[in-house]
Amino acid sequence: MTSTNLTETPLGLHFSEGSQGWLVRAEKQISYEVRFRDGIFRPEFTDLLEKAGGNEGTLRCFVIVDSNVDILHGDQIRAYFEHHRVDCSIMVVEANETVKDFETAARIVSEIDAFGIARRKDPLIVIGGGVLMDIVGLVASLYRRGAPFLRVPTTLIGLVDAGVGVKTGVNFNGHKNRLGTYASADLTLLDRRFLSTLDRRHIGNGLAEILKIALIKDATLFELLEEHGPTVLDEKFQGVTAAGEQAAQSVLHAAIQGMLEELQPNLWEAQLERCVDYGHTFSPTLEMRALPELLHGEAVCVDMALTTVMAFLRGQLTERQRDRIFAVMSALELPSWHPILDPDTLAHALQDTMRHRDGQQRLPLPVGIGGVTFVNDVTPQELEAACALLERLGDARVPEHGRRRDGESRQTSGASAA
Amino acid sequence: MTSTNLTETPLGLHFSEGSQGWLVRAEKQISYEVRFRDGIFRPEFTDLLEKAGGNEGTLRCFVIVDSNVDILHGDQIRAYFEHHRVDCSIMVVEANETVKDFETAARIVSEIDAFGIARRKDPLIVIGGGVLMDIVGLVASLYRRGAPFLRVPTTLIGLVDAGVGVKTGVNFNGHKNRLGTYASADLTLLDRRFLSTLDRRHIGNGLAEILKIALIKDATLFELLEEHGPTVLDEKFQGVTAAGEQAAQSVLHAAIQGMLEELQPNLWEAQLERCVDYGHTFSPTLEMRALPELLHGEAVCVDMALTTVMAFLRGQLTERQRDRIFAVMSALELPSWHPILDPDTLAHALQDTMRHRDGQQRLPLPVGIGGVTFVNDVTPQELEAACALLERLGDARVPEHGRRRDGESRQTSGASAA
Repeated sequence: MTSTNLTETPLGLHFSEGSQGWLVRAEKQISYEVRFRDGIFRPEFTDLLEKAGGNEGTLRCFVIVDSNVDILHGDQIRAYFEHHRVDCSIMVVEANETVKDFETAARIVSEIDAFGIARRKDPLIVIGGGVLMDIVGLVASLYRRGAPFLRVPTTLIGLVDAGVGVKTGVNFNGHKNRLGTYASADLTLLDRRFLSTLDRRHIGNGLAEILKIALIKDATLFELLEEHGPTVLDEKFQGVTAAGEQAAQSVLHAAIQGMLEELQPNLWEAQLERCVDYGHTFSPTLEMRALPELLHGEAVCVDMALTTVMAFLRGQLTERQRDRIFAVMSALELPSWHPILDPDTLAHALQDTMRHRDGQQRLPLPVGIGGVTFVNDVTPQELEAACALLERLGDARVPEHGRRRDGESRQTSGASAA
Repeated sequence: MTSTNLTETPLGLHFSEGSQGWLVRAEKQISYEVRFRDGIFRPEFTDLLEKAGGNEGTLRCFVIVDSNVDILHGDQIRAYFEHHRVDCSIMVVEANETVKDFETAARIVSEIDAFGIARRKDPLIVIGGGVLMDIVGLVASLYRRGAPFLRVPTTLIGLVDAGVGVKTGVNFNGHKNRLGTYASADLTLLDRRFLSTLDRRHIGNGLAEILKIALIKDATLFELLEEHGPTVLDEKFQGVTAAGEQAAQSVLHAAIQGMLEELQPNLWEAQLERCVDYGHTFSPTLEMRALPELLHGEAVCVDMALTTVMAFLRGQLTERQRDRIFAVMSALELPSWHPILDPDTLAHALQDTMRHRDGQQRLPLPVGIGGVTFVNDVTPQELEAACALLERLGDARVPEHGRRRDGESRQTSGASAA
């Protein structure tokens, strides 16, 4: 039985006298839905209850709510489940990158054990940002080897990124998402209304992932961001003006459509050259080392700024294209530089990511705006040159911005696994 | 988008204007091999190295060895990898049901981090019993969301049960395998030679899972056990006599074939009525409560004895069939009673398992020898009657047996998730 004929063997169980072995082949189909629904807690909307279990007419589920979301929306959430007479337990969890670990996952498991859920009927419902969705996604995939699962992202990065993929995870040993699974939520409900309570910086955090999709595959989305980025940032995607409403809808739809187009054919990452990994080569190390200073999207943006410069130095971007990209980053109030950047750190980060890409760099680099290529020939010298140029061009806006806004309420931290 | 048309939708990405949502449908194909290979550490056999990664001709892997196996076979294991100049780290782990927890998994993850493996190339190789295979299987499925993985079961229960399925897991909060995944090893190598160093009780432990397959689906295998059970137990499947060799081969082949026939069409347990769950309704609670007194297979056998009596009382087994079953249990030196059994404990155990079967009993019961049916109407009275009859018929052989043999070397504890 060689690996060649493995792939030609039909599904089923095959015993070979020759190799004295069985070959087991099987196929798993998965499907999941990502649905816009503004105002999900209005009593007439039952989307949240679609997958609820229970017995004999009683609905039953276990709800995990981010602690900041609970402060802002807790009363409404409780009123909703009470109105529908759902037998549920609501657990409030503080979630951010520093507690994105197995210990937090274990606390959730203990509470689920205490409440008791039927294996395939009673779902977990997570209401929060990317970090909490990643943790609860891991719990859902591990609990009795898989519990039903609904996601309600409450951050922009959650809506466009963590909430639409199938990756779960927690950090371990200082490594981002070192432990995780591929496990789809049965349903993700996207409610823009949450974004009204998000601070400005976290809108920017999500816009960074939207910009990523624009840069590697959607020039039209890039133009939308050029024209309307500041508006959707100001209006927090709430459609205060007619133009803002139109832009909010178009940007969200294009970003999620683009993301899902890339994810669907490669859900389990059989292909390791993923263009959605753009901005995610150097950023995991930057984010973990600068913790908690940089939000996930901010670290991604610094990575995109660096790789924009690398693409420019390779002649894959014109100076004009490069400057348009930097201008959008600036307009979205995102950083394109961070003092932690130096050639050694970058080389180390690339090395670490290469392990994750099975020993090769597989570095996505822009080709013009909206195109991408993968390279494997980055040298320390190239990193040094790019770093030096970026230091001149880049803008370390966010750390200051972060300090300036420290007093503001922050709904959630949004770093994610998707 | 109703759940009806979900299943009719083709694979791919579908946006519906009506529901304002995307439906993502995808398919994952998996294949794995289970291969007999006696003497896997003989230098001329390269089965163990088939999946090894590394770069430019250097093989690389991370090996996890049970501490008892290390005492018995450690030198041979090290010599094998040295002979083949494999760049590997060998981690020795004490594994038994009491340390089948996330902490043990985390220790393994830390060591893997320290060694550093490429994501898809450098495999984990586990050499040990069911407990260790379950723990390392979980680690392999979580590490960067999935590392390549080879299993070498060293116990009989590992060979016929834990080593051939796709279930991984650790205990949590006193619940058996509460956290786990479905993740196949790329390759499992079955080497009967390990069984020569197993104590007699652990041979019986594996024979219990073989008896399970016989009882619910293979009358011929049952007859093999009736005729040759004591021989394979005495000879530890080493084929000391020609008849013993023939029996060892036939029993192993039939048991694994039967197990895989049941697993392959239902790898992810979409169907919760699984006949291989026979003996696994009451036993998880018995095993955890009697810990460490009962081995997994022993707890399973007590459960099978109880449900044999239930089937007899329901008229699904004749007295003669019932007595033949008890005679085989006795000949295999397995317990068919334990002092912990009482109607309350059994009712509680059934309740707990019902959660795992999504709220229904789905209790597999024998119909004659080699047949099975699932029932949902077990009452406390029925449990009481069965318990009373079993107390008269059953044989609490193993706890004594266990004490009697405490001085003997035990290679590994073999309880498993499969």
